[in-house]
Amino acid sequence: MDKAFYNSNFKLGILGGGQLGRMFIQEAINYNASVHILDPSELAPCKDIATSFTQGDLMDYSTVVSFGQNLDLLTIEIEHVNVDALETLEKEGVEVYPQPHILRMIQDKGTQKEFYKEHSIPTAPFILSDSFDYNIELPVVQKLRKGGYDGKGVQILRDKKDVTHGFHEPSVFEDLIDFEKELSVIVARNTKGEVKTFPVVELEFNPEANLVEYLFSPAAISQEVEQKAQDLATQVAESTKVVGLLAVEMFLTKDGEVMVNEIAPRPHNSGHQTIEGNITSQFEQYLRAITGMPLGDTSIIAPSVMVNLLGEKDHTGEAFVEGLEEVMAISGATVHLYGKWKTKPYRKMGHVTVVDKELESAKEKAKKIKDTLKIKTR
Amino acid sequence: MDKAFYNSNFKLGILGGGQLGRMFIQEAINYNASVHILDPSELAPCKDIATSFTQGDLMDYSTVVSFGQNLDLLTIEIEHVNVDALETLEKEGVEVYPQPHILRMIQDKGTQKEFYKEHSIPTAPFILSDSFDYNIELPVVQKLRKGGYDGKGVQILRDKKDVTHGFHEPSVFEDLIDFEKELSVIVARNTKGEVKTFPVVELEFNPEANLVEYLFSPAAISQEVEQKAQDLATQVAESTKVVGLLAVEMFLTKDGEVMVNEIAPRPHNSGHQTIEGNITSQFEQYLRAITGMPLGDTSIIAPSVMVNLLGEKDHTGEAFVEGLEEVMAISGATVHLYGKWKTKPYRKMGHVTVVDKELESAKEKAKKIKDTLKIKTR
Repeated sequence: MDKAFYNSNFKLGILGGGQLGRMFIQEAINYNASVHILDPSELAPCKDIATSFTQGDLMDYSTVVSFGQNLDLLTIEIEHVNVDALETLEKEGVEVYPQPHILRMIQDKGTQKEFYKEHSIPTAPFILSDSFDYNIELPVVQKLRKGGYDGKGVQILRDKKDVTHGFHEPSVFEDLIDFEKELSVIVARNTKGEVKTFPVVELEFNPEANLVEYLFSPAAISQEVEQKAQDLATQVAESTKVVGLLAVEMFLTKDGEVMVNEIAPRPHNSGHQTIEGNITSQFEQYLRAITGMPLGDTSIIAPSVMVNLLGEKDHTGEAFVEGLEEVMAISGATVHLYGKWKTKPYRKMGHVTVVDKELESAKEKAKKIKDTLKIKTR
Repeated sequence: MDKAFYNSNFKLGILGGGQLGRMFIQEAINYNASVHILDPSELAPCKDIATSFTQGDLMDYSTVVSFGQNLDLLTIEIEHVNVDALETLEKEGVEVYPQPHILRMIQDKGTQKEFYKEHSIPTAPFILSDSFDYNIELPVVQKLRKGGYDGKGVQILRDKKDVTHGFHEPSVFEDLIDFEKELSVIVARNTKGEVKTFPVVELEFNPEANLVEYLFSPAAISQEVEQKAQDLATQVAESTKVVGLLAVEMFLTKDGEVMVNEIAPRPHNSGHQTIEGNITSQFEQYLRAITGMPLGDTSIIAPSVMVNLLGEKDHTGEAFVEGLEEVMAISGATVHLYGKWKTKPYRKMGHVTVVDKELESAKEKAKKIKDTLKIKTR
């Protein structure tokens, strides 16, 4: 008990100090947890609210090792980190969650796809290739095996002329699924093997930026699909044996099947609405999972819609928030700004969650918010 | 708009860095607000999460003036501060809310009572005296005019033998009200004069420590009493013209009347359940009020019970939290620890809010929490 995370000089560290770490800290404060941050940017959103902040490269072996050596527990808020360093730290006795081998698997979308296949987890058919494959059948989705993030490194090649922008790097070529909806389930698994899923949410993407624009909770799906999606998320959590969270993004096909699109081993944009809309938020659930505490009740308190605040298209520079006062006058809207002082096109600058008695009225409010609240430069 | 609190280098300061400031910061993070703290203790709960932390005496004129001079907006989380300094800062162009003259009035319980009388605000009949009044009719409540806090400086004198512990300082002697219930309403008034009340809550006190032990939301009262209590809170906010929050603690008398007991010009223990139980929390409402933003919807999302975590009676020293894991397994319970590393008898060390579908089941869970979660030393 000496080393319980809420009791004494327990030190928790996070690789990455962006908005996910920031929202995690907001909730970790409730447990007196000291949170130490490593991030390459001196303007990282977590900088001012972390117990300590270290500037450094997350991909650099010795930076990560020396950051981690004084910690009791190390976690991540971005998966692009030096996994060798995490393995070294694990050997030295630091608890590292999610486990380094899971990060290694997820970092490479090819290995990720092979994992699904081995574990009979439904996913779009694919082939792997070391470079661009000119014989590939179109249409196809090309995903870089490594380094993609927030919609980057993924593209749809529909016809011959698209082939000219093919990535010439190791890739996954995946069948283009003609889906009905995109769904997501956040699933938690703690150090004791307890697993709990959040209710299924529905995602609507900004086609230009390939980023989540709206999220609807609960998803408008049948009870049967809800169950299938939750079972699938549980299957992924149990077959990976992850400790922490997995955001399992799924396709609902036109014939009612669910298949895994991608997973992220951390809090995720598709769980932000849980802060206001569910009994336990994904951030608190994450803390519970990695510290071995009982997982929280994931039930929905109220229907909710989340809208991402992306930097406006033609604005790069010091951020200016437009329309906040009007949005704060909307009942049930909670604004989350991410502490980013510089904006650029499609940068994730914040989000707003609207809770309401009915999902439909929450949707209307969310549309109004999207039209009102803009991140610009002057 | 250059100086909007969420946009650029706006500096907000708080006198006091305890749990109220800490929970305020947790929500202010959502708006990118920089929060600067002045507190006498180097172990203040806000220290690690504030944008900057200054150690200093809140009652010292020059300490407060020099802390405030670089700020755009200065507020408080404790009313025992140097008001002369606030007046100086106000003259120098710093926005100070709540307004210094209101703090001056509230700091002195005698002036506070006279204010109620002048404004026809129902309150227990009283007399003022410069020292102990041996002719006072018993039973009576004696309250020190100045310096009382968290149950200190208030006592009930029931009979002749109690008179020996009478305070020999300027006091209010107040009729002992044989009340049915103790109620509280948090009311907000913003810089534009908009006023909004939270629904009425019911308080249960620890008789030994004179501190809130349980809080029930909503209060089990008739619609008529609910309306009277909200009207009374509105009347107090409008007659004081406060900018910020007032916690209006009230008695519900046995014949169904409500009268003001005391007011506090800041977030208050009787509003902690709003974090989980209401659309807008008292801390966010406070931020909205002092920055001139529209006040948020105060509706209840779910019935809730709050239980204070007070330091155990025979424990003084380094705090040790017992029973947290069991409490985290209770559905709907959210734990808030205040980042206080030292405990002493009855020190407010944290609170837990339980939300549930029904108030009765939330009450049962809260009783279990109180019996389980203990703040001790080893």
